[in-house]
Amino acid sequence: MSITLYDLAGADPALRFSPYCWRIRFALAHKGLPVETVPWRFTETDVIAFSGQGKVPVIRDGDTVVSDSWSIAGYLEDRYPEPTLFGGATGKAHALFVNAWADGVLVGGIARFIMRDLFDIIDPKDRDYFRSSREARFGTTLEAVQDGRENRLAAFRDLLVPLRLVLRRQDWLGGTAPSYADHIVAGTLMWPRCASRFALLEDSDIVAGWLDRMLDQYGGLGRAATRAA
Amino acid sequence: MSITLYDLAGADPALRFSPYCWRIRFALAHKGLPVETVPWRFTETDVIAFSGQGKVPVIRDGDTVVSDSWSIAGYLEDRYPEPTLFGGATGKAHALFVNAWADGVLVGGIARFIMRDLFDIIDPKDRDYFRSSREARFGTTLEAVQDGRENRLAAFRDLLVPLRLVLRRQDWLGGTAPSYADHIVAGTLMWPRCASRFALLEDSDIVAGWLDRMLDQYGGLGRAATRAA
Repeated sequence: MSITLYDLAGADPALRFSPYCWRIRFALAHKGLPVETVPWRFTETDVIAFSGQGKVPVIRDGDTVVSDSWSIAGYLEDRYPEPTLFGGATGKAHALFVNAWADGVLVGGIARFIMRDLFDIIDPKDRDYFRSSREARFGTTLEAVQDGRENRLAAFRDLLVPLRLVLRRQDWLGGTAPSYADHIVAGTLMWPRCASRFALLEDSDIVAGWLDRMLDQYGGLGRAATRAA
Repeated sequence: MSITLYDLAGADPALRFSPYCWRIRFALAHKGLPVETVPWRFTETDVIAFSGQGKVPVIRDGDTVVSDSWSIAGYLEDRYPEPTLFGGATGKAHALFVNAWADGVLVGGIARFIMRDLFDIIDPKDRDYFRSSREARFGTTLEAVQDGRENRLAAFRDLLVPLRLVLRRQDWLGGTAPSYADHIVAGTLMWPRCASRFALLEDSDIVAGWLDRMLDQYGGLGRAATRAA
């Protein structure tokens, strides 16, 4: 039986753009686990009420329900050990730092480039919730959050220095093959890739080269993703 | 036979303050390997010429010479596998991201708080080299680099967000016990601790609590370190 993944979708149900859901899409593909995704919108909290909370990703695997991407990755690793996402307990502990950097630095850095673009692709029924919640978070309008983004590109790209230093020494964050560390960062970068046409990375950036290789992994899962028009 | 570590020292030979040498001090202690440290000053490149380069840490283990902290950690793990620093190949690959973050974000962030203090503790023979090389790097005087540091503390502390997110979930960067990821970050924080009296961390910061526990590891190696007067 397939695992069911509740997956954030736009007005176009094929448009999937959550940085956290993408981490799990990659992790499931890494393990070769069949998945059935259910398009889900921000305001459909009733649909995932069975998970005891209101955000995606949520997975249902038989009788087991798990939410929160880090917890889901841990569940998948325990339940389906091979091929490994983490390479053992210390590998998992170290991957948590990558997860924390992605959540605490990368997500916030990207948000300021695509917040208004997100408004354009989400389902119309999500728009009031999205605008009010995000404008409260940023303390300004969606338009103001995204404004002047071209001038902030250099500062954003500076945030990627740790990735560059790693990728100069090894092909993947996981070493000689992708691991959940790659899924975390590539999943996060699927967010602007799918939700916006604004180019965050320079083609010549070693990070762009790595992301390009990630898009081809797992039968081209990332490459095939629907993108904003 | 002890491993010999060439270890950056100040005018006071007991004052050891290199963020890279401290990573190796912790790693050697983690493995229970006896070490004999040789105090070394920036301008003593002739003393380590046998290593084929001009920076510390350098270790000599019998006939083997290794430089560069990441390379030394890898050598120690290969040569003396237990207790492990990395927990396997993927754990090592993931630790490289922590190393890259420490080198690319943390070292630069700290430098602007202690650059002038460093000048006060280094050996007088190193002063011309230190001032000219660092002033060229920063494009301004040592005094100007450090100036107004109180006003930059909040921005520095924001850089530590990924550490906080990890330490809310687990006691050590290595999970249930310290790993080389802990040595990397604690080693980097030994640099301001030993070279300066300026307090970078708030006592209430979860990072300060973790560092305090790291200082007590390995028989209190970090706690016992000589600090600037």
